Amino acid sequence: MRQGSVVVMGLDPGSRATGYGIVRESSGQAELVATGVIRTPAGKDMGTRLGVIYARLAELITAHGPAEAAIENVFVSKNPSSALKLGQARGAAMAACATHGLSVAEYEPSKVKKNLVGVGGAPKDQVAFMVARSLGIKKPDWPEDASDALAVAICHLNERRMRRLIDG
Amino acid sequence: MRQGSVVVMGLDPGSRATGYGIVRESSGQAELVATGVIRTPAGKDMGTRLGVIYARLAELITAHGPAEAAIENVFVSKNPSSALKLGQARGAAMAACATHGLSVAEYEPSKVKKNLVGVGGAPKDQVAFMVARSLGIKKPDWPEDASDALAVAICHLNERRMRRLIDG
Repeated sequence: MRQGSVVVMGLDPGSRATGYGIVRESSGQAELVATGVIRTPAGKDMGTRLGVIYARLAELITAHGPAEAAIENVFVSKNPSSALKLGQARGAAMAACATHGLSVAEYEPSKVKKNLVGVGGAPKDQVAFMVARSLGIKKPDWPEDASDALAVAICHLNERRMRRLIDG
Repeated sequence: MRQGSVVVMGLDPGSRATGYGIVRESSGQAELVATGVIRTPAGKDMGTRLGVIYARLAELITAHGPAEAAIENVFVSKNPSSALKLGQARGAAMAACATHGLSVAEYEPSKVKKNLVGVGGAPKDQVAFMVARSLGIKKPDWPEDASDALAVAICHLNERRMRRLIDG
């Protein structure tokens, strides 16, 4: 039986660089739609930078029509000032999703690793390897922030499929 | 000589309650346009709440047409997890301003107090008193978050006027 297809967007926000990964799943197979990194203008004030994150994500959502979004729940072991900046980037990104009707699922980093690699403490390069493999791409050419965003998108697709199986 | 008038919006964002204060200045006199608190739905996920902050501010900007926005630079002496949440609310609010063409000026809390009361360490009720007085309102009936947002709006108007005098 051919299942319907769904498009989801994974996000790895930061005030300087926000990774995004848009993935389509049809018949249980994940396929890359678009991925990249939104870089905010370095010399500009925070408002302008957050506006760029919001506007670029709004464009991507309109262009590719993801139905749901997913984001990694960050460790906030850093100092409060870094946490505030990171929060601002996340807020702009999540607002862009919400105002376009996308729910935003949050996953612990260990959950994403366990989902993709099978181990919660898996190293970054193993996660990146599994991201490329899940998408059937032999030589991935995307930067790390993009790979992290794709990881949470794929994790969300897997979790989503699992939930649907359980719910019948 | 009659000067032109300008409308600015002050913001005091939080994930549960975001205060806003829209103030018009004409001929050097500040006047209240709109103030209030955006409360986000308690049981909902963060994405939904951030979407509410963004959407409500977008409505207010469209309705009242502020030309510029201002926000208090928060103390981040709290724990990183609170800073992240606060950052997310600020990010949604600042993105709403930026995507509607408003610059967002940031002021230190001590700067706002000094601007309104004359003392950087002024107590909250004195700031609230000066907010009402600056707007020519005898019995203010707005909540604290709204008053804080009005304070930064008035501070921005004063700083703006000062800068224009200096710049000639």
